[in-house]
Amino acid sequence: MNFDLNKSIALLKRTPPALETLLNDLDEDWLYGQEGENTWSPYVVMGHLIHSEKTNWIPRLEIILSSREEMTFGAFDRFAQLNDYKDQTINELTAEFKARRNKSIEALQAKNLNAEDFSKTAFHPQLGAVNLKQLLATWTVHDLTHMAQIVRVMAKQYTAEVGPWKQNLSILRDRS
Amino acid sequence: MNFDLNKSIALLKRTPPALETLLNDLDEDWLYGQEGENTWSPYVVMGHLIHSEKTNWIPRLEIILSSREEMTFGAFDRFAQLNDYKDQTINELTAEFKARRNKSIEALQAKNLNAEDFSKTAFHPQLGAVNLKQLLATWTVHDLTHMAQIVRVMAKQYTAEVGPWKQNLSILRDRS
Repeated sequence: MNFDLNKSIALLKRTPPALETLLNDLDEDWLYGQEGENTWSPYVVMGHLIHSEKTNWIPRLEIILSSREEMTFGAFDRFAQLNDYKDQTINELTAEFKARRNKSIEALQAKNLNAEDFSKTAFHPQLGAVNLKQLLATWTVHDLTHMAQIVRVMAKQYTAEVGPWKQNLSILRDRS
Repeated sequence: MNFDLNKSIALLKRTPPALETLLNDLDEDWLYGQEGENTWSPYVVMGHLIHSEKTNWIPRLEIILSSREEMTFGAFDRFAQLNDYKDQTINELTAEFKARRNKSIEALQAKNLNAEDFSKTAFHPQLGAVNLKQLLATWTVHDLTHMAQIVRVMAKQYTAEVGPWKQNLSILRDRS
């Protein structure tokens, strides 16, 4: 499948309400469970999605589209959510993610991007040259990655409870 | 986390509307993409979830609770969805899954299960003795497994499009 802006936006719009439907008002055992020491609970993943929305996608898009000399992305704090998002309810987190995402999509659509824009590049501190199309595809895949993580971590809370079925449920062995 | 009927039902109720929110009206490229030959697209996974709802969870629960002599589960056709669900729209599939799930939950709640019921057993043709608690925990994990599969398969449609970011997105290498 080739990158397509509208197909990406269709997914980017759906992930916040899908997560809201899945997580709102859910019991704490599901929301705070982890899959090992120093791994992220569904609650922490929601904080990471919000932090990414604030500091990553549209800010990096702006850097790529700018004509500044120094077009290198700033450092991204992969752990900010551990400090910034710990006192909110899960419903507050899903609502903030959805509101920020809707604003991001408005900002994205307001750019009226064309084919030339998609091949504009900037420098990622670890990965080197990346272009706008790759940034937007990565944004989409990043949503899906963290949805997969959320449901995987929830599944693992029942590892002991499924008994003999464990051998048929490979999700329980992923990332172990 | 110990098995808890209400916590399981809370998740079982949420997966159908979450999938509806994620998949309804989505472009065919996302819905029919696969991750290799003979692997399941998100569309096929939805058919599998419906088929499981029809033939697996409540029917197996009934077998466990019955006092029939022969308490062995029947064979489960893992591929039925390839024939039974191919002409519907995705919106029809998500609606059917939600309707069947709601009926399953009603049937489950009408049983007024107690602690003694949870340890009742039946025989799984491959796995041997399994109890009701394990069946219900597996039902929950099965939902989460297939949500993870759906988002993983969608993510993979953009494997080539993320460029250098591929190395940071381990979901693109899962099950490959």
